[in-house]
Amino acid sequence: MILSRRRRPLAERLILPALLGAASLAALPAAAQAPQLPPPDAVSLDKLGYMSTFPPTPEQRVDLTNSYKYPQLRWTMQHLRELVPTHNIRRGAAPASALPAAPKPLDGYVFEDDKGQKITVADWLKATYTDAIVVLHKGRVVYERYDNQMKPSSPHLLFSVTKSFTGLMAAQLVHDGKIDDQALVTKYVPELAGSAWGDMKVREVMDMTGAVRFREVYTDPTTEIFGYSWSSGLLPRPPGYQGATNIYDFLKTLKKEGEHGAGFTYRTVHSEVLGWIVSRVTGRHWADLMSENIWQKLGMEEDAYVMVDSVGTPLQGAGLNATARDLARVGEMLRLGGSFNGQKIFDKAVIDDTAKGGDREKFKAGGMPFRPGYSYRNQWWILHNADGAYEASGIHGQMIHINPAAEMVVVKLSSHPVAGAGFTHPLTLKAWAALAQAVRQ
Amino acid sequence: MILSRRRRPLAERLILPALLGAASLAALPAAAQAPQLPPPDAVSLDKLGYMSTFPPTPEQRVDLTNSYKYPQLRWTMQHLRELVPTHNIRRGAAPASALPAAPKPLDGYVFEDDKGQKITVADWLKATYTDAIVVLHKGRVVYERYDNQMKPSSPHLLFSVTKSFTGLMAAQLVHDGKIDDQALVTKYVPELAGSAWGDMKVREVMDMTGAVRFREVYTDPTTEIFGYSWSSGLLPRPPGYQGATNIYDFLKTLKKEGEHGAGFTYRTVHSEVLGWIVSRVTGRHWADLMSENIWQKLGMEEDAYVMVDSVGTPLQGAGLNATARDLARVGEMLRLGGSFNGQKIFDKAVIDDTAKGGDREKFKAGGMPFRPGYSYRNQWWILHNADGAYEASGIHGQMIHINPAAEMVVVKLSSHPVAGAGFTHPLTLKAWAALAQAVRQ
Repeated sequence: MILSRRRRPLAERLILPALLGAASLAALPAAAQAPQLPPPDAVSLDKLGYMSTFPPTPEQRVDLTNSYKYPQLRWTMQHLRELVPTHNIRRGAAPASALPAAPKPLDGYVFEDDKGQKITVADWLKATYTDAIVVLHKGRVVYERYDNQMKPSSPHLLFSVTKSFTGLMAAQLVHDGKIDDQALVTKYVPELAGSAWGDMKVREVMDMTGAVRFREVYTDPTTEIFGYSWSSGLLPRPPGYQGATNIYDFLKTLKKEGEHGAGFTYRTVHSEVLGWIVSRVTGRHWADLMSENIWQKLGMEEDAYVMVDSVGTPLQGAGLNATARDLARVGEMLRLGGSFNGQKIFDKAVIDDTAKGGDREKFKAGGMPFRPGYSYRNQWWILHNADGAYEASGIHGQMIHINPAAEMVVVKLSSHPVAGAGFTHPLTLKAWAALAQAVRQ
Repeated sequence: MILSRRRRPLAERLILPALLGAASLAALPAAAQAPQLPPPDAVSLDKLGYMSTFPPTPEQRVDLTNSYKYPQLRWTMQHLRELVPTHNIRRGAAPASALPAAPKPLDGYVFEDDKGQKITVADWLKATYTDAIVVLHKGRVVYERYDNQMKPSSPHLLFSVTKSFTGLMAAQLVHDGKIDDQALVTKYVPELAGSAWGDMKVREVMDMTGAVRFREVYTDPTTEIFGYSWSSGLLPRPPGYQGATNIYDFLKTLKKEGEHGAGFTYRTVHSEVLGWIVSRVTGRHWADLMSENIWQKLGMEEDAYVMVDSVGTPLQGAGLNATARDLARVGEMLRLGGSFNGQKIFDKAVIDDTAKGGDREKFKAGGMPFRPGYSYRNQWWILHNADGAYEASGIHGQMIHINPAAEMVVVKLSSHPVAGAGFTHPLTLKAWAALAQAVRQ
């Protein structure tokens, strides 16, 4: 159902193209950048009724053949584990850490959107298909809303926000001297010798300046995006499929294209390689590291989970699912320099190295004009604005946004019909600024 | 890999035959009833190293092609969700309910096994490939042990213990007048009109006296056990598979064989039908009912989960996974007549109706001489012994055993190489009696 582009509606066509690269929308023709979006209330899960009868009617079924189509994707974002194998990321046995509330009436707060129109926070959330938002100011929950059947306890698919966890874990291992970011990838994963990563440095993986041929042409199943989707289990394999049946075997097949270190190019496969390095160096499964080093120490309220492939490999660049409140704890820990709940999660130097950002000139090569002045460091997006903000970002509107100057953390989880950040990001930047102003009042 | 019987080792052959019917071992030739079992330490997960490297070596891989072979099954019992889609059964947001400890030194407690040999409790646990045991006496944890990488927080696959939850939920709905157990199944699930259940009463489903043709011949893929395994996702489908792709569609294909109500015949498909009735009557997913009516009210420590098929149908007869301590809470709630943690979970009349048992004469038709004097009621096994004991039971050694007279609950979770209860049950009965004596001392 993804091979024939012509007959599918526009909103659907916008999903898969950007499944793995937030930049993809920028490459679409201009007409596609102002798609006709379905009214949010028309695609609420209450209205759609997916998987709500026993068995579901054919129209209400969500399975691997349609889970990333729209509006079925709205269901998938809160129910991924019901479709695919997953690995648990357990919270600790201790009671959840405190997240004190100090509500501010932000629903009606008015700001100017990217078109110069007045909009309230509540309307912005509705217009961007928000499932959950949590805003912290000085560590207190000043604003928290759920919609579309989402609950405080619901894990939500985070897509590329996953990368930012992999990046921080790798950066900590670099800080600890357990990974040399100037070494070749093959020092840790010799299996990649014949691939694009054969002569690539770890740092080039961490900051996505390694040059790997990874085409995403959704009308051409010979392009690499299909191999990634089929090997990982993101999409069902076609009859007679003979390709790689797990992520690691697929990574070995990818070739170099261009010069390593020359410029930023956003590629999910770098995050998979980085996760492989982390597991190889620690001897531990990514999900167990996430649990022991982050989830348990932060005193999370809920277990998180990650999708795994047929040999248990986590999708270290796209497969994490967690609740909004627990992600807010992550953001607050970062804002506080790596510690929270009386525990050191990361060294402050690791957070500082991330937040100061990477090479802004190289970033321009990435084709993301909607992220003006940004850089990418340790798998985080750095705004380089006056507030020192940085963020994790996933398609369809997943965000952890940290604004140190405003002492603010925003977690926004969405199921937007447009995958790539390009469509929403100009408005998102306006909203960040508005929220930073609102919480300070 | 399950079609060729000849070349496979005995232990492996014993697994699938009893995947869905604890009676199967009784039907094996006498020689098979004394299999050469692997020494437990030789098949410990520490030794086997399954899925412990990144990626796992071919020898250390567990996937859908070998997950129910032995010893791979030892890994599967604690990691099912890493292989298949699952639906969460959430605990509540409140702190876990108290399970006070009052340890007794039972490791060295000696009793006489079914062969007349002296054996200690610790040796019994080792010899029966126990992953976890929790013994409650008067609501206190007097004994708790874990082995084989199992932790207090690890959910363990429970196989047919699942049925007992489905049975209790159905019995409560009968008590509430929402299900008429004397009505035909088709009153609730008209889709089954053309099947074995077309003229079957709900009570005959609940107590497994309905007559359905369900052959388990593991050398003959035309027998119904294959359809169940392929439609549910328990086994990978063969190339070109054209059969049912979910449990409910498969159930519709099963035919009547014999006379309903005449005698007990253990059939997992009855539990799937019963779960269907429960969901149809309540309009709720089985896992959500489990969460709201049982897991949240009991104050569980951990989320549980259930395997689901391709349209989200839980395996209501075999797919539950939970921790030993949380199952101990279930047992204690039953021992107390349906209430625990200040909450009424089931009416006392429902528990009493279950514990008093069913028709012992009809039970004899079920071919389980290793359960002498038993009956089966509301999907529970009733011992009809002096202590009024009853239990839930799943293949490979999963048990919740309630002994009202001894004020004792035992949860035992195992990964025994022999699936069916017939092989271990004579020893199990000796152990129950010994523990009942030990806790009273």
